[in-house]
Amino acid sequence: MRATTIHGPRDIRFRDDVTDPVVEEPTDAIVRVTTACICGSDLWPYRGENPVKPGSTIGHECIGVVAEVGSAVTRVAVGDFVVVPFDHCDNTCAHCRAGMQSGCVNIGMTQSGQGEFARVRQADGSLVKVPDIEERPDPTMVPHLMALSDVMPTGWHAAVSAGVRAGGTTVVVGDGAVGLCGVLAAAQMGSERVVLLSRHESRQRVGRAFGATDVIAERGDAATAAVMDLTDGIGADAVLECVGTGQAMTTAFDVARPGSTVGFVGVPHGVELPVRTMFSKNVGLAGGMAPVRKYLPDLLDLVLAGDIEPGRVFDLSLPLDQVAEGYRAMDERRAIKVLLDVG
Amino acid sequence: MRATTIHGPRDIRFRDDVTDPVVEEPTDAIVRVTTACICGSDLWPYRGENPVKPGSTIGHECIGVVAEVGSAVTRVAVGDFVVVPFDHCDNTCAHCRAGMQSGCVNIGMTQSGQGEFARVRQADGSLVKVPDIEERPDPTMVPHLMALSDVMPTGWHAAVSAGVRAGGTTVVVGDGAVGLCGVLAAAQMGSERVVLLSRHESRQRVGRAFGATDVIAERGDAATAAVMDLTDGIGADAVLECVGTGQAMTTAFDVARPGSTVGFVGVPHGVELPVRTMFSKNVGLAGGMAPVRKYLPDLLDLVLAGDIEPGRVFDLSLPLDQVAEGYRAMDERRAIKVLLDVG
Repeated sequence: MRATTIHGPRDIRFRDDVTDPVVEEPTDAIVRVTTACICGSDLWPYRGENPVKPGSTIGHECIGVVAEVGSAVTRVAVGDFVVVPFDHCDNTCAHCRAGMQSGCVNIGMTQSGQGEFARVRQADGSLVKVPDIEERPDPTMVPHLMALSDVMPTGWHAAVSAGVRAGGTTVVVGDGAVGLCGVLAAAQMGSERVVLLSRHESRQRVGRAFGATDVIAERGDAATAAVMDLTDGIGADAVLECVGTGQAMTTAFDVARPGSTVGFVGVPHGVELPVRTMFSKNVGLAGGMAPVRKYLPDLLDLVLAGDIEPGRVFDLSLPLDQVAEGYRAMDERRAIKVLLDVG
Repeated sequence: MRATTIHGPRDIRFRDDVTDPVVEEPTDAIVRVTTACICGSDLWPYRGENPVKPGSTIGHECIGVVAEVGSAVTRVAVGDFVVVPFDHCDNTCAHCRAGMQSGCVNIGMTQSGQGEFARVRQADGSLVKVPDIEERPDPTMVPHLMALSDVMPTGWHAAVSAGVRAGGTTVVVGDGAVGLCGVLAAAQMGSERVVLLSRHESRQRVGRAFGATDVIAERGDAATAAVMDLTDGIGADAVLECVGTGQAMTTAFDVARPGSTVGFVGVPHGVELPVRTMFSKNVGLAGGMAPVRKYLPDLLDLVLAGDIEPGRVFDLSLPLDQVAEGYRAMDERRAIKVLLDVG
């Protein structure tokens, strides 16, 4: 099949001779990918921060058509158009039933999302069918459906973890696609004030469209001072940390009011948590890998009703064979998030 | 006045020539202490883990009679028998109104609780009068009222922070007085199973009296295995970390099920939080210094109704002039918690 492979730092290749994935377990399905995208977390191996096995496929976000199902799969059928949660789950184990599908005892991950075919483990638990689709969705819906595979549920999880509530002030640290979806989530949940920390005009624009009421361009202590100024010295009722670096985490705890929670969804890299500050301020931390399957049905309804348009985070679309340029554009922050047309 | 002073590691002295505290601000009150006690956190300076100013008074838990009030104090009067929260608050600022009185903008701490008189800042916000007391409470009530100054609200805060709910499994790491009060709190909140990690028979006994349904004597990985065994491999719905050491925190995260929260109330010493584990398991951390004043009225009602008997954590009572022996007994773990009769 045509697919994307990674060979080392900044070495992303489009190839047309990758072995097709096959059904290995009765609970598997194979999805023919129509649309994929590049995740901020794909940049960690791209930048050499995570080890890679040279030549392995990459990509964990995709949507498409069910091409084959294992013998135990009953809830989806060949031909269904589906959103593929990046984290696969059986949706029946104790952790899934408790709403933490990312802790599923049968957890799996999409391994060749930036390719023509992707194997999905636990297809019955994982896949969510998009209703009323003949062949493929309306082109205007594609980006919004694509965003449901990871980025939108991840931003939502940040807001849920931070305990965003109606009427309060939410601060979002990070203006990447996840942070912007965090803004959208907080606004949907009724946060009265949504403050985005961003210094990039194009990202600020999406943030405001998603519901940010205030944008702070400062960083570090100056950003903290600006938030304190906005909140009469009280701090934020909820903070979303959507980056995963030490500096972002420090800012998140600095702007959090006593008794609030920092929701974090960026894979932490080089983060040391300030346990004494957390103790003295009574500021909690919650979050992690998003239980996409938990949020997906409700978010799909919001997308289909036109209530949210999370696909606005995609500001560059490329055909799959230009995937390497997509990585470069995201690495250099020329693009917020890149959509890949797989065909 | 007669009071306790600390001069260096393991150098606790009873003296009868300490200067009386006085009303310094119109919002202050002076409480004549009738009963005090020794806190687990007093052992940090006692053991030389925290710096001390030689000769300073010590003790932050006390109950007694209001002896003097500043000109702005209106809610309590001379002669009232009161519980003194160890952390003083105005109970009117934004953080207090949000239920996080330990983050009060006018926060204060009792400085000479193990002495004859204690200055209380923000007396109107802090002090809670015990109703229907002529001169002093019935002797059987004294330990239970004493426990409301810190240890019981702190255990309660651990349970609240951990999100203890009816029907679930709560694990309590730490069999000190705070951990035992955490057991009592979890049981009161309806936790179906309350698992106490303890290897000391006297503490196990109090834990069972407080509602522990299971006691695990193992430590470290063996303790984790035992909890997993008890919970069909799922882990705890809520975990209370009531020690403050790295080992206790590690165990707490190990036994927590995905999506749960570790509530922590032990002042952290040498704790490095496992941020990658927290992320991959979606286990949160919340807690800190307890907002005693928030919980105090309800806990006082429970004590007066005879519904809880938190004073059972006191297994040694001494007159104030034997305070040094009290510290030794707690340091050597001969006593769970020491009550001091100030007179």
